[in-house]
Amino acid sequence: MASKKKSGGAKPKTTIAKETRDALALIKRGAVDVLPEEELISKLERSRQTGKPLVIKAGFDPTAPDLHLGHIVLLRKLKHFQELGHEVHFLIGDFTGMIGDPTGRSETRVRLTREAVEANAETYKQQVFRILDPQRTKIVFNSSWCRDMRFEDVLGLTARYTVARLLERDDFMKRYKSGESISLIEFMYPLVQGYDSVAMHSDVELGGTDQKFNLLVGRELQKEYGQEPQVIVTTPLLVGLDGSRKMSKSYDNYVAINDAPFAMFAKIMSISDELMWDYFVLLTDEPEANFETLRKDPLETKKYLAQLIVADLYSTAEGKTARSQWDEQKTSRTKMVLPPDTPEHTVDAGIQPEALLVDVFVDAGIESSKGAVRRLIQSGAIKLGENLETIEDAYYRLSFPGDYVFKIGKKRYLKITGR
Amino acid sequence: MASKKKSGGAKPKTTIAKETRDALALIKRGAVDVLPEEELISKLERSRQTGKPLVIKAGFDPTAPDLHLGHIVLLRKLKHFQELGHEVHFLIGDFTGMIGDPTGRSETRVRLTREAVEANAETYKQQVFRILDPQRTKIVFNSSWCRDMRFEDVLGLTARYTVARLLERDDFMKRYKSGESISLIEFMYPLVQGYDSVAMHSDVELGGTDQKFNLLVGRELQKEYGQEPQVIVTTPLLVGLDGSRKMSKSYDNYVAINDAPFAMFAKIMSISDELMWDYFVLLTDEPEANFETLRKDPLETKKYLAQLIVADLYSTAEGKTARSQWDEQKTSRTKMVLPPDTPEHTVDAGIQPEALLVDVFVDAGIESSKGAVRRLIQSGAIKLGENLETIEDAYYRLSFPGDYVFKIGKKRYLKITGR
Repeated sequence: MASKKKSGGAKPKTTIAKETRDALALIKRGAVDVLPEEELISKLERSRQTGKPLVIKAGFDPTAPDLHLGHIVLLRKLKHFQELGHEVHFLIGDFTGMIGDPTGRSETRVRLTREAVEANAETYKQQVFRILDPQRTKIVFNSSWCRDMRFEDVLGLTARYTVARLLERDDFMKRYKSGESISLIEFMYPLVQGYDSVAMHSDVELGGTDQKFNLLVGRELQKEYGQEPQVIVTTPLLVGLDGSRKMSKSYDNYVAINDAPFAMFAKIMSISDELMWDYFVLLTDEPEANFETLRKDPLETKKYLAQLIVADLYSTAEGKTARSQWDEQKTSRTKMVLPPDTPEHTVDAGIQPEALLVDVFVDAGIESSKGAVRRLIQSGAIKLGENLETIEDAYYRLSFPGDYVFKIGKKRYLKITGR
Repeated sequence: MASKKKSGGAKPKTTIAKETRDALALIKRGAVDVLPEEELISKLERSRQTGKPLVIKAGFDPTAPDLHLGHIVLLRKLKHFQELGHEVHFLIGDFTGMIGDPTGRSETRVRLTREAVEANAETYKQQVFRILDPQRTKIVFNSSWCRDMRFEDVLGLTARYTVARLLERDDFMKRYKSGESISLIEFMYPLVQGYDSVAMHSDVELGGTDQKFNLLVGRELQKEYGQEPQVIVTTPLLVGLDGSRKMSKSYDNYVAINDAPFAMFAKIMSISDELMWDYFVLLTDEPEANFETLRKDPLETKKYLAQLIVADLYSTAEGKTARSQWDEQKTSRTKMVLPPDTPEHTVDAGIQPEALLVDVFVDAGIESSKGAVRRLIQSGAIKLGENLETIEDAYYRLSFPGDYVFKIGKKRYLKITGR
């Protein structure tokens, strides 16, 4: 129940419906900034009263997406808005991507074709719809409004922002001060991004904390174009498996959204007990009220966390299976007992002093393709040696001369002899 | 004759034709910067050899033009290029003018209509063709290439210039340092102007010294777009009649291009002996070799200067007439002798303690319109009092009670009595 309290200021505090207060609490969970909170409250209230969903914007770059748990933090926050009845506008910033580097000098800013953009959008969909509700998601491309803008429209855009405000952005200021060159086009990108909010009539824009400046540009431009400005919500950068740096492909401390359930489970089990709580807040909806109880048994809690995440990205059943596999591997680890009919495959160590496990398995006739062997590895089905160590690396190498014994799945075995 | 001398550097000095050396000397007369001179030499040489005229660019703003001698400095330099066989591209920067202030806030940056731009272009023509050769002048409008530019073309343009270079412009740096706001659109204007050089394939751009930065932007952008860069030539700001500030309408120290011949002559006669030499260099082709002789009789020399300028803007005959009128007024100044049939006009000082001369003359029936009286004043035809002082001010006022006697032209007289 909302209580009517008189605030100290000139404006009397409006009564906020419980529904709105609950919504606000959900949105604020794990968020870094919600700016300004009062405006979010009025937008939520208005939407509740009119039944008109809010437009929730989130921008993604149009290059080939390969999402990891770091992206899930943001996607889950979008999902929260969907659960509250709002509409997510998943914006693919293809306009500048299709331009690439207009001077033709940079090899990193490659010009994307229309077809590449569409293919990437498909890849995005396959990944993000594992979190987002397709019914409440609109995929939009900013080329659809930017490509029709003429020189005079662009001048109109530049007339609505100042040089000083752009130079306030940390990276620009640092580069300017150190004499490092900033091309004027770099000043244009935040304006393109900000103008997207105008074109989309965005109510709320979400982004990582590193996007805060750009999100605010959108807010300011909307005011300049006479629109109600968007509220900005930022989510933190997820710390990677190493417990120190942000999760990133380039640091190899990540869990890919496309990792197989067991691999995903195992990777999450590798994080520190301390980091686990960040993951609970940012990657699950587990109520914080339960954390105290959960703290009592860190190992069980971490398995619970890993199971929740796998369940979220695959299914409740997959979450359970991954957990059983893990438990089985850890608790019922017995010595390998080779059945008498175990097939044996021989490798000529003179010719192959080293070989990929997948190649040897195909040669031995376990599967007909390397892809099939890799999928076995990803599902945690290949165990090595008498201690039944699970092979997790799809590029696992065997050295010869040497002898290896494998258990594959529940019933198959293989002996490899290299001489 | 060009002499073949070996220079100290790695490149042997090319022989320069006498024609080119003479051309260079003409161009450099009164110019502040010719950058880089070597490139101008090679352009001139190539044009001489191929017979292909150079494209000489000069930009003008599209608002109603009201030119004065300050503008003549630049127009005469363009004329020099025409005399050398080159083609002047008189650029009217109508594109941004037709946009005005895109935010709609500024009252000073009014949006010009297509019709206004065309009317102003006509007014320009009427004035500039008094100096320039219409056969070697092309009037161009930058809207013809800018209006077709799309967002991606504009991004391509901004990719070719840096923020730091723009902030180097004196006024930007001062404003940035003092915390005064600079809209990003202001960074776009020099780029638009510079891109005009690209679109026009300009060989040489002329402008006042205050335009040096913008002219250099054009040069740099041409390089970025893979063109041979333009040479820039700057002309100094002409000092006004007061001998201290630049000539400008707002300082009321100017000679308008449309001033009547005698008024123009008389205004030029009012400058100091010192300033006269600047005017000789910047507003005439008088060889500097003659200056020593001319210095011997400053008064005669100043009349010669005034006559040259009137002749340049009107005709040799008008130059001579203005000078005779001046001489007549100064040397044959006699007492006024009113003929017996002088008409007399009476003013009621109780009703009109003060009145414009033009109004009283119309009332007295001297001319049928105020405009006609003003034209009499502009031609120096109205003389007042027994000392025959020439009335030069079109807004000359008479106070009453008081008596005045006028000589109008050679034969008419008027007596005005205010009681």
